[in-house]
Amino acid sequence: MAALDVGGTKIAGALIAPDGRILKRALRPTPAKEDETVLLATLAEVLGELQSTPLWPEVRAVGVGSTGPVDAAAGTVSPVNIPGWRSFPITKEVGRLSGGLPVRLVGDAVAMAMGEHWCGAAREASNALCMVVSTGVGGGLLIDGRIHSGPTGNAGHIGHISVEISETLCVCGARGCIEQAASGPAITRTALALGWKPPQGEEATAQAVATSARQRNKAAIAAFDRAARALAAGVAATAHLLEINLAIIGGGVAEAGAVLFEPLRAHLQEYATLPFATPCQIRPAALSRDAGLVGAAAAALAIDQERPWPLSPVREAVTR
Amino acid sequence: MAALDVGGTKIAGALIAPDGRILKRALRPTPAKEDETVLLATLAEVLGELQSTPLWPEVRAVGVGSTGPVDAAAGTVSPVNIPGWRSFPITKEVGRLSGGLPVRLVGDAVAMAMGEHWCGAAREASNALCMVVSTGVGGGLLIDGRIHSGPTGNAGHIGHISVEISETLCVCGARGCIEQAASGPAITRTALALGWKPPQGEEATAQAVATSARQRNKAAIAAFDRAARALAAGVAATAHLLEINLAIIGGGVAEAGAVLFEPLRAHLQEYATLPFATPCQIRPAALSRDAGLVGAAAAALAIDQERPWPLSPVREAVTR
Repeated sequence: MAALDVGGTKIAGALIAPDGRILKRALRPTPAKEDETVLLATLAEVLGELQSTPLWPEVRAVGVGSTGPVDAAAGTVSPVNIPGWRSFPITKEVGRLSGGLPVRLVGDAVAMAMGEHWCGAAREASNALCMVVSTGVGGGLLIDGRIHSGPTGNAGHIGHISVEISETLCVCGARGCIEQAASGPAITRTALALGWKPPQGEEATAQAVATSARQRNKAAIAAFDRAARALAAGVAATAHLLEINLAIIGGGVAEAGAVLFEPLRAHLQEYATLPFATPCQIRPAALSRDAGLVGAAAAALAIDQERPWPLSPVREAVTR
Repeated sequence: MAALDVGGTKIAGALIAPDGRILKRALRPTPAKEDETVLLATLAEVLGELQSTPLWPEVRAVGVGSTGPVDAAAGTVSPVNIPGWRSFPITKEVGRLSGGLPVRLVGDAVAMAMGEHWCGAAREASNALCMVVSTGVGGGLLIDGRIHSGPTGNAGHIGHISVEISETLCVCGARGCIEQAASGPAITRTALALGWKPPQGEEATAQAVATSARQRNKAAIAAFDRAARALAAGVAATAHLLEINLAIIGGGVAEAGAVLFEPLRAHLQEYATLPFATPCQIRPAALSRDAGLVGAAAAALAIDQERPWPLSPVREAVTR
């Protein structure tokens, strides 16, 4: 299978075996400020590098995971952080560039959920939420053993549900969205506001806040606690709405480890209170930064197997 | 079909035609403080009254909607407000009392969603949330044209998702649950705290608050606004998570009409901000207090048609 992962900073491509192993990679920085033509040329370069290998003739379908919003039904993307693409027909263009192969487009968080379900931390799950906590906060849903991406491919979008309705305005126009407390930039903002300073010579990032939190810096701990509480409320809301019993947390912020996961598990007990919601567990993602690519390949494999979902789960996680 | 609607104040029964019309009713007050034996005898009386009609031999299955928590998989109920029933095997007992007919148990809010989808306000919908706003706040989900009740029949439980994580404790142990702001008793509490007084000789109820709000009483308007804002955040959360495009609001509090629905629609625009969530509409329930019975009959009809869902939608709503 061929897979593309379109993000605001990079466009990654891969050829992926039917067991989830990555056989070949291609990577270009996203020319995010350029126009449609330059962006398309970059996409073509990534695909071209995959096509130049002797494995290409075995490719039967292409999966595309993209930063959103996407319209999976229309096959178009309008990524917030790639202004040159608005209602860009990525499915059609990738089909053309790959010589007429079938193409399936999914949002990046849905791709991550597909990857984690196929051969990651959600392999045994039937009802789960897979969250990406990074520059933004997104998610994908597994319901009754199937990926549920909704009519336009955006279901699971946990980042902009409100858990603090009286809070200040979020960039999306609502108030108290989970992303406002839990994204990497939000954690950094909270820590700075509480008096945290990055170690000399380092930039103020969520990673630096995590390091300080591990060294028992109070402001840094409080910033992660605030993020964990918002995430816990979102997981609990999903557990009450959908009886999920597993939440997978991935993305750059999840790499903070115990500094995030310990308060997250503690707060989940506070908010997931009804008997059918209390069994909900939290686990870190298994596929790390490859989840999007592996998930896009899973989307392609689903086309090839002529069924929407589920795929036969792979026994062991094969990429890290 | 035969239908039972088990609530904290009444146990209602009905025989219902395949087009949703109610052909025969039976009703007893719930002896909520009595033991299991007295409760079972009341259930038997309601069923007995239905069995005494010449229509009974045509009944092919029985649907039971019950106040929760229910465990639809186990066929048991443990209603918060009927302490005499804990893990009570209602499915088995109703089967025995009806001479071995197949029985399907669903939660009361799921039953309401089934009723509204079969022949109420959600007939044309594929992705919707049906909410009951009354003494408590519950809900049922329609996903991809099917009722989604989750592994134990409790999915859609919108009342205890938190929209104000820093609020005071809810009875469930979490903080800032929708029910804490939007249930009938919550609306009354808010109004009283803001200085509202019930008209002389009347009890302090959400209905009385609604009357005062229509007469432009500021505290009463503020109480309904607070409820509407919490409900709007819950609908928006569901729209972002599941791409629902319709929310149906029923239950006693919804009978307040414009006093609730106007601020609810206004606040929904504040919280449902992403493009795939903005089309979400709000409509009042169509079946009023019969939704639970009609929905239980729909559950029974689904057994009879040997498929979980959907039923053929009925053209016109037939009960009010």
